[in-house]
Amino acid sequence: MERPRRGTARDAALVPRLATQRLSLYLRQLEALQRAGERMASSRGLAQALGFTDAQVRRDLGYFGQFGYPGVGYRVDELVARARRILGTDRTWPVVVMGAGNLGRALASYRGFARQGFRIVALFDADPARAGERVAGIRVLPPKDLKRVAAREGVRIAIIAVPAEAAQRVCDLLVRAGIQGILNFAPAPLVARRSIVVCGVDLAIQLEQISYQLSR
Amino acid sequence: MERPRRGTARDAALVPRLATQRLSLYLRQLEALQRAGERMASSRGLAQALGFTDAQVRRDLGYFGQFGYPGVGYRVDELVARARRILGTDRTWPVVVMGAGNLGRALASYRGFARQGFRIVALFDADPARAGERVAGIRVLPPKDLKRVAAREGVRIAIIAVPAEAAQRVCDLLVRAGIQGILNFAPAPLVARRSIVVCGVDLAIQLEQISYQLSR
Repeated sequence: MERPRRGTARDAALVPRLATQRLSLYLRQLEALQRAGERMASSRGLAQALGFTDAQVRRDLGYFGQFGYPGVGYRVDELVARARRILGTDRTWPVVVMGAGNLGRALASYRGFARQGFRIVALFDADPARAGERVAGIRVLPPKDLKRVAAREGVRIAIIAVPAEAAQRVCDLLVRAGIQGILNFAPAPLVARRSIVVCGVDLAIQLEQISYQLSR
Repeated sequence: MERPRRGTARDAALVPRLATQRLSLYLRQLEALQRAGERMASSRGLAQALGFTDAQVRRDLGYFGQFGYPGVGYRVDELVARARRILGTDRTWPVVVMGAGNLGRALASYRGFARQGFRIVALFDADPARAGERVAGIRVLPPKDLKRVAAREGVRIAIIAVPAEAAQRVCDLLVRAGIQGILNFAPAPLVARRSIVVCGVDLAIQLEQISYQLSR
């Protein structure tokens, strides 16, 4: 785990992690405006749509070096392109999914990934009975093929969708195959060297946001 | 969508939405400390583990009316109990899952829900061939049974795991059955009256956090 560092807000290395998460939310909202044919966005409009304050929106976009045109707002196309460039999704990332059980299959079929620039190139499963299957047109391969496929396709990101007890073993396998970023759906903490980006998904957090609101 | 409201930070109704999300993260970290046998937590330790600043941690916990013991820190048990009470997870919530495809099955088997107080009581699927199946011990039922099951079990929260094109129809069905909170995995925006809490899950956001870090 990185120690938090201090510094001026403008330094890109110091953009708060949560501002990056909000950048994804801005991007979704701006893409929706784009689809609706809107050319300009206001900090007030973005704030209202996302439940933030105007000041928060202006500060967040400022972190990323984007400033509005006074009295006019932000150019949607420009902000979408900039957000994608910062998030690294101005290109396509090949991704592998580890585990072809229900979750792995659901992720392979999830249309939201391709739309944001993530292309699932293969599913891996240790069960020999599953090798050779196709899920949403994607091949299920045995783990021994991982290194070769990762090298050939230039895969740097993997998704772990195996049971908790297998997650660390799969994580080690990924690191040995040269994977640098791991999205972990298994409810188990993973240990990897500092240079590996590990991001855990905790689906219960979203339910807690709902129980919080229903409890008020 | 609620308009953002302004006011003093201490007013519970005005706690920023992101502070509530962070509260879930604090809770996970505190539960990990609890499992490790730790009795006290420091704002610095929480900050380092979660990648926030000390000031952020103190401010967040202050929103929820919790203050540390100077020079000692926070009592872990106390903070865990308080976080659960605020999040509404100091009791068990019965939840239904709509859709018994790969995602619905994966969610029914997800062990992270029960651990945080969410108990899946039934899966619903419009495909008559699936009715009567059991997934992780949970029954698959036809949609016509929803209202009866929701009333009998006191279900207020539902998870939508159907294809995008069916999501709005299922949302309307849930609202008519008295459901008040909806976690939506379908990559489609839902329209429901203001009193219904709708929370969309966008799995690509997590991948964007990884591509962002790998692009720096």
